[in-house]
Amino acid sequence: MTSSSGLPRLSRRALLGSAGAAGLAVGAVGGALGQQALAAPAAGTGGSTGAALGRATIPFHGPRQAGILQPAQARVQLAAFDLADGAGGTGSRDGLRKLLRQWSATAARLARGEDAPSAENQIARDAGPCSLTVTFGFGASLFDKTGLTDRRPAALAPLPDFPEDAIDRARSDGDLWVQIGADDALVAFHALRVLQRQAAGTATLRWQMAGFGRTPGATPHPMTGRNLMGQVDGTNNPKPGQDGFEEKIFTGGDGWFAGGTYAVVRRIRMLLDNWENLPTDRQERVIGRRKSDGAPLSGGTETTAVDLTARGADGALAVPADAHIRVAAPGSNGGAAMLRRGFSYADGVLADGSPDAGLLFVAFQADPMKGFVPVQRKLARGDGLSRFIRHESSGLYAVPPGAPEGGYVGQALLD
Amino acid sequence: MTSSSGLPRLSRRALLGSAGAAGLAVGAVGGALGQQALAAPAAGTGGSTGAALGRATIPFHGPRQAGILQPAQARVQLAAFDLADGAGGTGSRDGLRKLLRQWSATAARLARGEDAPSAENQIARDAGPCSLTVTFGFGASLFDKTGLTDRRPAALAPLPDFPEDAIDRARSDGDLWVQIGADDALVAFHALRVLQRQAAGTATLRWQMAGFGRTPGATPHPMTGRNLMGQVDGTNNPKPGQDGFEEKIFTGGDGWFAGGTYAVVRRIRMLLDNWENLPTDRQERVIGRRKSDGAPLSGGTETTAVDLTARGADGALAVPADAHIRVAAPGSNGGAAMLRRGFSYADGVLADGSPDAGLLFVAFQADPMKGFVPVQRKLARGDGLSRFIRHESSGLYAVPPGAPEGGYVGQALLD
Repeated sequence: MTSSSGLPRLSRRALLGSAGAAGLAVGAVGGALGQQALAAPAAGTGGSTGAALGRATIPFHGPRQAGILQPAQARVQLAAFDLADGAGGTGSRDGLRKLLRQWSATAARLARGEDAPSAENQIARDAGPCSLTVTFGFGASLFDKTGLTDRRPAALAPLPDFPEDAIDRARSDGDLWVQIGADDALVAFHALRVLQRQAAGTATLRWQMAGFGRTPGATPHPMTGRNLMGQVDGTNNPKPGQDGFEEKIFTGGDGWFAGGTYAVVRRIRMLLDNWENLPTDRQERVIGRRKSDGAPLSGGTETTAVDLTARGADGALAVPADAHIRVAAPGSNGGAAMLRRGFSYADGVLADGSPDAGLLFVAFQADPMKGFVPVQRKLARGDGLSRFIRHESSGLYAVPPGAPEGGYVGQALLD
Repeated sequence: MTSSSGLPRLSRRALLGSAGAAGLAVGAVGGALGQQALAAPAAGTGGSTGAALGRATIPFHGPRQAGILQPAQARVQLAAFDLADGAGGTGSRDGLRKLLRQWSATAARLARGEDAPSAENQIARDAGPCSLTVTFGFGASLFDKTGLTDRRPAALAPLPDFPEDAIDRARSDGDLWVQIGADDALVAFHALRVLQRQAAGTATLRWQMAGFGRTPGATPHPMTGRNLMGQVDGTNNPKPGQDGFEEKIFTGGDGWFAGGTYAVVRRIRMLLDNWENLPTDRQERVIGRRKSDGAPLSGGTETTAVDLTARGADGALAVPADAHIRVAAPGSNGGAAMLRRGFSYADGVLADGSPDAGLLFVAFQADPMKGFVPVQRKLARGDGLSRFIRHESSGLYAVPPGAPEGGYVGQALLD
């Protein structure tokens, strides 16, 4: 709104300029994981309570791509693109290189809170970057289409089919994967539209899904989130700094993909009508955790290690044999080997009247054969929760390491 | 998260208790319109920056229903319900009365930040009310089904068909309309699920749509929002306290509907691919306002009154003949006679690859024949913007006055 003094609305660039001057590093939205976030306190020029949310900035450039280690934002847009028909081999590679260079430059600009390169779309004007992150991944098909099959990362093979899967291939896979997160829905949608427009002629949108998490400030302090089943979800997620974290999540070696990670993306619909018909105590036995605070049924608090051998007064296992946390429990391999960063989705109702809602599961790992695949194999066999969910789409993407200043994501593969 | 001292997570009730004690009335999210919002500063017990967003409370009870005069929240769930088959007449009226009593009590609880009456769904546990509002409306069909045709408000007749309409009746109309707004997506979805579950046996979900607005704090200070076309949208919205505001928005008289309002709800898809292909200056001529700051093309700032007679240096009208703001301009009736409170939506892509995105138009008015209908008639005839939008669903609902403490919405009709 133009001020009564007739001064024009502050440009996003001006906003960020002042934020930079006051530059104060804080964990803006999520404690330990927020170390990359920068936020300035509300400036004196009309700043309102909470304007730090808008100004919070996560740099695009760095050794890891943004959008992996940072806490999930309030809003996500997931999308996949396919290289345009007719392209192929070297020519297609040129187009891909140009697109990734443009996408990276744009993502870096938007993450800094600068305007998009072209002005036709100004959906996010007035807003700060709101912790915007853009993460790029490559599907297996990308390598074949660009004549780079021999440089495809080893583990980028199709995920196996699991029992009970009901996968819609039209909303799965894709040559290029984009994850856009922000704490403002307009900022996230704006970034998607800008990237989509830049892809014109090179790649077309294959599928797109929107998700959401907690709005910063909705809870009195950062805490493990809840999914749409109402369960505390993510308690045992590995955390940066923990022993072995880097090796579990990021690839080693010295090829172009060193320092990358694999993203498994699954749209998992929740059968909420059935779920909410279960009394709370039965829901808790399906999961193996107390609903109110996420503590394992073997006792303690949310962060207490589950005791799978514990028994109740009646002699029965405290955590039932088919409880989700028992079946999903890591075996002797030393702990969960994937970093989940999921979002909820709720897209209205299906033809049968049931909610089209659930989880956009996103998990990063150094090797899907040690992360997602063995866990999902176990879950699909014996998890009591599987009666209440349906996996409806699936993707596996190689997520390259981050780009340094002036570079672009995928440069080591394409240059 | 359980604190390291072993103290349990604060219950929502406890949170609100402390908020009540510190009770401080502030315009939490939107300046002049936020006068009903109450928020407490972050408490000493672990409150983090921005936690006021979670604690902000908009009372359910009052002379007007909540969710009309308050600024649009970051998230909305719109839904319509139909009374269950087989019901009718007096019996159906009993069921409706019981449902509205239960819905009102639940909406009031959730708005205060208390837990839902039943525990199967705890999606919003841990979160504050986040400015939750629940607004109820009655479709014309409700009166026939409950034997109350003679008490149907006069203006609750079907909206006329407009040229270019492409209305999907399955996502239109309905006996009962519910608008749920909150600054947290999980809080809004939770409320919807609780209300839907309570309706079981009495009413079934007919349609549901999710929308979004700005997250508080995304912009440096409250300002008129932008829609997904990137346009500043809502500049001339009437504001409480303005001359004639009450008479334009709320009904008079002394019947059961006195102090009510009519909600027009339209799902308006934007043809964003076409729109973004227009250069900015052509977009501006379609709307009649500058894109950057919303100032009319006749000059000034966003809030400057448009001069429809102004001409540029070339002698042409500054605001073109078919510009949206010219065609939508109120005539001699003294100003816009509806209060718009819309939200954006973005639900992925349609089969043809275009975005399923646009505006969930919600507008409140004392008489749709003086508010929405005449404006839309003009727009459908001559608005340059109509080439870039499609009205895909439509509803008109009588929104009763608010309920006093201990009462329920619709009580004057049903008791």
